[in-house]
This record gives sequence, C-alpha cells and structure tokens, in this order.
Amino acid sequence: MPDAPPARRDALRRDAFAPLLDSPRAETMRRHTREGRATHSVPTGGAPQPVTLFDDGRSRINLGTNNYLGLAGDPQVVEAAVEALRRYGTSAAGSRVLNGTTRLHLTLEEELADHYGTEDAVLTSAGVNANVAVLASAGAPGDVLLVDAHAHASLHAAAAASRGTVQRFTHNSVASLERRLDRLAPDAGAVVVVDGVYSMSGEAAPLAAIAGMCRRFGARLVVDEAHGLGVLGERGRGAAEAAGVLDRVDAVTVAFSKSLASVGGAVLTSRAVADGIRTTAMPYLFSAAGDPAATAAALAALRVLRREPERMQRLRDNGALLRRVLTEHGAAPLPGSGAVIAVPTGDDEATCAAWAAAHDAGVYTNAVGWPAVPRGQGVLRLAAMATHTPEQLQLAGELVAEAVRRTRAPERAAAMS
Amino acid sequence: MPDAPPARRDALRRDAFAPLLDSPRAETMRRHTREGRATHSVPTGGAPQPVTLFDDGRSRINLGTNNYLGLAGDPQVVEAAVEALRRYGTSAAGSRVLNGTTRLHLTLEEELADHYGTEDAVLTSAGVNANVAVLASAGAPGDVLLVDAHAHASLHAAAAASRGTVQRFTHNSVASLERRLDRLAPDAGAVVVVDGVYSMSGEAAPLAAIAGMCRRFGARLVVDEAHGLGVLGERGRGAAEAAGVLDRVDAVTVAFSKSLASVGGAVLTSRAVADGIRTTAMPYLFSAAGDPAATAAALAALRVLRREPERMQRLRDNGALLRRVLTEHGAAPLPGSGAVIAVPTGDDEATCAAWAAAHDAGVYTNAVGWPAVPRGQGVLRLAAMATHTPEQLQLAGELVAEAVRRTRAPERAAAMS
Repeated sequence: MPDAPPARRDALRRDAFAPLLDSPRAETMRRHTREGRATHSVPTGGAPQPVTLFDDGRSRINLGTNNYLGLAGDPQVVEAAVEALRRYGTSAAGSRVLNGTTRLHLTLEEELADHYGTEDAVLTSAGVNANVAVLASAGAPGDVLLVDAHAHASLHAAAAASRGTVQRFTHNSVASLERRLDRLAPDAGAVVVVDGVYSMSGEAAPLAAIAGMCRRFGARLVVDEAHGLGVLGERGRGAAEAAGVLDRVDAVTVAFSKSLASVGGAVLTSRAVADGIRTTAMPYLFSAAGDPAATAAALAALRVLRREPERMQRLRDNGALLRRVLTEHGAAPLPGSGAVIAVPTGDDEATCAAWAAAHDAGVYTNAVGWPAVPRGQGVLRLAAMATHTPEQLQLAGELVAEAVRRTRAPERAAAMS
Repeated sequence: MPDAPPARRDALRRDAFAPLLDSPRAETMRRHTREGRATHSVPTGGAPQPVTLFDDGRSRINLGTNNYLGLAGDPQVVEAAVEALRRYGTSAAGSRVLNGTTRLHLTLEEELADHYGTEDAVLTSAGVNANVAVLASAGAPGDVLLVDAHAHASLHAAAAASRGTVQRFTHNSVASLERRLDRLAPDAGAVVVVDGVYSMSGEAAPLAAIAGMCRRFGARLVVDEAHGLGVLGERGRGAAEAAGVLDRVDAVTVAFSKSLASVGGAVLTSRAVADGIRTTAMPYLFSAAGDPAATAAALAALRVLRREPERMQRLRDNGALLRRVLTEHGAAPLPGSGAVIAVPTGDDEATCAAWAAAHDAGVYTNAVGWPAVPRGQGVLRLAAMATHTPEQLQLAGELVAEAVRRTRAPERAAAMS
C-alpha cells in the first residue's frame, strides 16, 4: 500500500452542499419517477388545451393547468408571438437597462398600467422575480414585512431578501395581522404581503379588511395577483378589484404564466416606486429582458382579456360547474373563489395515488404536497379553463371524484401499504 | 374647518417603501430619459443583429448586445421557436413539477448535460434564477459562501439567500481567497462562488488556481458561465473549460440570454445535486417553466454551437480585431479574454456622454456605471458578434474611440460642467 497522503491540516470537515444532497424528498421523487407517478414523468406533447396531448400518446382532459382563459394555444396569441419572433428575433439578449428594451416591452408596460389604473408598470422576465423586485428593496433595517403564512414561496423568499425583518401572520387572519401591527415599534415601517388568490387552495385574501388595517396603521400593502388576474374582478384585475380596494394597494404583482398565456411578470405601482425598482432591483437591472415571443404573447393575451370579458364569465361558470360535480360525487373541494379548486387527499402518498388514478382514467390534475401545502394536507389541485365544454367538465369531475374516493378508502390504503 | 381627525395612536411613523422612493439614481435616470441619453430611451426595433434597426428609425452598428454568436436572429433558431409555438403554444402555464414539463424541456436538459459532461442539468426560467436555485439551498448555518467581490449581482443575491454566511474576497485574488479559507473554522463547509467571465470587464477568473484552492481546502466551487458559454474553451463551455478544470467545478450555471439566443438558465451538476435543486429550490419548484419558444430557441442554438464551432473562432477573431482598432485609436480597453470589451470612461456623467456620442455617430454600446461597476470606474461595454464583418468592426471601433476620446478631453469636461 502506498503511504497515507500527507495530513491536510487545512481541509474543511463539512460539505457545504449537504443541504442539497440530503434533500429528504429527492429519493421519493426518484421513486415516483421510476413508477411513472411523478407529475413530470409524462411530459405534455402539445399546448395546454381543454384536451391535451401527452407525450405518452394519450390525450387527457386537462384540469391541471394555469392557462385559465385558454389563451396559451389561442391562434391570435400564438400568431402575435410568431410575428414578434420574426421581427425581434428569439432574444433581446440583454437587460432592460442596457440593450434589452424593445417597443414590445414598453407597450406591455403601458397597457398593463392602463388596465390597472396605476401610474406605471415594471416587467420582470420571471413572475417570481416581480415579487423579488419590489420586496427586496422595500424595508430598511427596523422595518417589518408581515407576510401571510401561506403566501407564495416567492413572496417569502422576496421578503427575506429585504433589509427589513420578516414576520409571518396566521393565514388569512385579520386578527393575527392586527396583533402583529399593534406590537410594532412606533418608529418602524411595515409592509403587509399577501396573495390575492392562494395558488394551491383557491381562497381569496380578505382584502377589504386587510387594506383597512394597512390604512389604519400606515402600512404599505403588496398583493400578488398571479392567480387573480384574468379571474376575479369585473375587469379581471384580481382579488383586490373584486374586494373594491385596488386603489389602496401600493404594489400589485402579476405573473404572465397564468391567464396571460406567457412567462414573466410585472409590478403595477406608482411612478416613484417603479423608478425605485428600475434603479435598485437586481431582477430588473441585472436580468435579461423577457424574450420577444413571451412579451408579445402577454400583450396579445392582455388585449383579448380586455376586449372579451365574457371569457372570464365562462371561466367562472365552468369553475362553478366543476365544483358542483365534485361535490355531488363525494369529493367536495375546499371553499374558494378563484379558478383553483382544491380537493383534499391527505398525505403525499395518498395524493400521488389519487393523481395516478385520475391520470390513468384520462384526467390530468396537479398533485400538491408539502412544501406547497402544510404536511398531510395534500390536495388534487384542479382548474377549469374558460374553453372547457360542460360535457368535458362533467366527465372529468366524475372521474376525479372517483379517483379521490378510491384512494381514500381504507381497503385501498391497506392494499397500498 | 372640520375638527382634526382623531389621533391615530397606532399609526406607524415610517414609510417602509422609503428605500424605493429615495433611490438616489431615480432622478438621474429620469433626466437621462428626458434628454434621450438613457440607454433604454431608444428601444430596439428589430433583432440584435450586427446592424440593428432602432425604434427611432435609424440603424446602428450594434456593439451592445450579448447575442455573441449572432443566433438571436438566425433563421434556423427563429424557425425552431416558431415550430415550438405552433406545437406547444405560448406557455407551458405551470411549474415544471406540476404541469410545465414538455419534451422540449427534458431534451434541453439532456443535451446541456451531455455537452458539459455532467450527470444532469436543471432549467430555470430566468438565468439569474439558476444562481438562486443552487446557492440558496447550498450552505447550512455555520457554512461560508466565499463570493468574488465583483461577481454578478445575482450571485451575491443568491448567496445571501443561503442559510450559510457570506464573505466577499478581493476580485480575482487567489491570495485573498486563500486567506479567507485559511481562517474558516475547521467544522465549517465552504462554497467558492465566481463568474467564469466577468460580465462588465470581460476578465476571466483564475480558475486553475481557484479550483486547486478549493480541492486543497475541501470547498465546493460554483462558476457562473453566463458570459463564457459559447465564447471560451475548445467546445465553448466557458472559462472553466479554457482553464482545463471543468471537471472540478461542482456546479456550473449558464444563462441562455447570451450565446444561446434565448432567455432562461440552467445548473449543470451531479444527479444528486440536481435532484436536491428539484426538491428544494424556490425558482424550480415555484416558478413557471420557460416558455416553449425560448426553450426551443436555446435548444436550437446549443445544437448550432456544437455543430459549428467555427462560429466561436469568428467571434474570437472579431473580438481581437475590435480590441486592436480601439487601442490604435487611443481608447485601449481593459485586459480581458471573453467577448466583452470594456473601454474605461470615468464617472457616470462621462460614461453617458460617451454613450450618447457613439449613439449619435451610429454605434450602439452599453453605458455601464455604478452599481454594475465600482463608482467612478464606468465603461463603455462592447462586444463583437461572430457575425460582424471586419469592415463593420473597423468603422465602429474608430467611432467609439473618437466618442470616448472626445468626452474624456479636458475642454469637453469643462464645457459640460
């Protein structure tokens, strides 16, 4: 045997990648992938339509997409993106402040601000980065960001990037928020941070009460309308519009990967705050501009939304129908007012089993477990689209209800253990 | 007069949006916009080509784009994106783990990993989010992330999101890095974080020495090859390939918004680390998948890069020519080995004046000031593309050199004050 290597007095003992290597869910994910039970193990083979082609050659009724208004495969949106590609190429190839600004970006900002009635709008190339753009720069040391406990992971991450301190309040509890505001030092500033519609449950935030609380305490209010845009409110501006308090929100963030059939996001706010973002926020200053195709798609979808509000009514009617079918067939969803419909399933294994049963039966859904929801409170997350037919929703609702009922039953649980 | 309103005992005294409202550069930005001197005040009106049409109707020689290989307007890349739009629609409309995975995403991950010789690749929908995806989950309390002081803003933000502690070391100083590693507690783990090519200066990191240091201390090494991909190394894999240490890098991050003519990014790493990212990282789990057009564009561009390495040689030859012209005409750039060429200009006002003079003369460049570079060390940031002709670069180099010389001259400085 060779001599032992010289003692490496300076070698560190710990592996800094351990948190990545020890991810408790990685082995579960690999097992689900091997068993064909991972939601990503059968990729989609076509646009997210009411009936979607999957890469295994099967078409399924698609209740598992955020393409709420059905615009991601709409010819007028697709052709607007094609035209942008042919004119502007596949990439602006730079950040907005250097060389990434095209007329498309400016027009989308103008029309979004006009739709929301705000002075300005600032785009980010990922929707989650709209939250980072506004929250990372909001809050000085001593200020407090009060974040709903169930707020989207990007809001928690964005608040954590602020120089202020983060506190969570009990989900949708105005009393909990009030207690926390009441205990703040009088020389602190505060930002209250909520989802308009909670993405995994479909619940709306109690925004009238929250906005009143913010006014009383002099706190700023940031509302993520990713899942409210195109769904709630007379003009589809989200939960704050539906609650009648849109003009009291200091910054609305939106994502384009839902109703607007694209990718990216924006902050709708005052000119002063927008310029603050444009001159301080990492995801604006130091990130590439959205690609021309995505920017044109969001703009085209926004125009359809404004021109054809009846699409939203169809979405609401379809959602109500799907809720009714599920309830009638023994799989009552959680209460909610957005497009998202959450059917409780239990722990992660039960959720996966229900997902697989629905998948086999020809319905695509979303299996949602921890950490997107609290442990043991898994759901099948469903959404009707504006473009589903009543017949598709009736059939899919019955099949999903059956899948959930079967995988909930004790004999099934015993057989799977 | 009405009575005074009741005293609001519970109103907070401070505005938590003050850091956004007090941005010291917002007024400068507004002034530059009014004067037409803001880099975004004249948006581009077409794809970022060697000669680019701008929205003011003028065409300029474009030295201000990250479209290094010229693929963002290349018909084969554009048509791949068009085909993806027609097949998959404008958005996958969901996160990768729920419903956002198409065959395109899986193929891009496979071909990227194959190109880099890594076990796996994980996509993120914004390039900056690839850095967040790997670094936010790397590092437990007690671990240290050692970040080059000039590293890209997204690396600093991503490291700050880790549960470990962040320390900066002096830019490109192996001695500074060694001192910091030497002082770490023996029970700490460490991650060293650098750019392969620094985006504002074009310098490469001394990666052979840094990789040796990481091996000696048992530290992990993360290299952002956003500006190395498609530029450096025999196969265009970046600064680590050029330094012969690609196999010693624990995670390479790339952005598609440069050579790959798209938007988005990826982490190239081991299967175990990739699965850690897939099960813990916010920008993977909770962010929408890249849009089909962008995903297809990056895939098509990667295939061109692998099939036609002569494009990289043209890029290098063009870069060398532009450097020579600038030097011969009295505007010597900073040393560097990447596609980026930085010509020192001085403070922000001088940088803007040089940018405007070049712009008026018909050359588009990037004006770079604080905080992208240290205060007072502004540059005109230039890049040759593989598709520029020598004649275009000769003319543009002379015009830029003249713009910089004129705005540097004492009489000019006096006239502007």
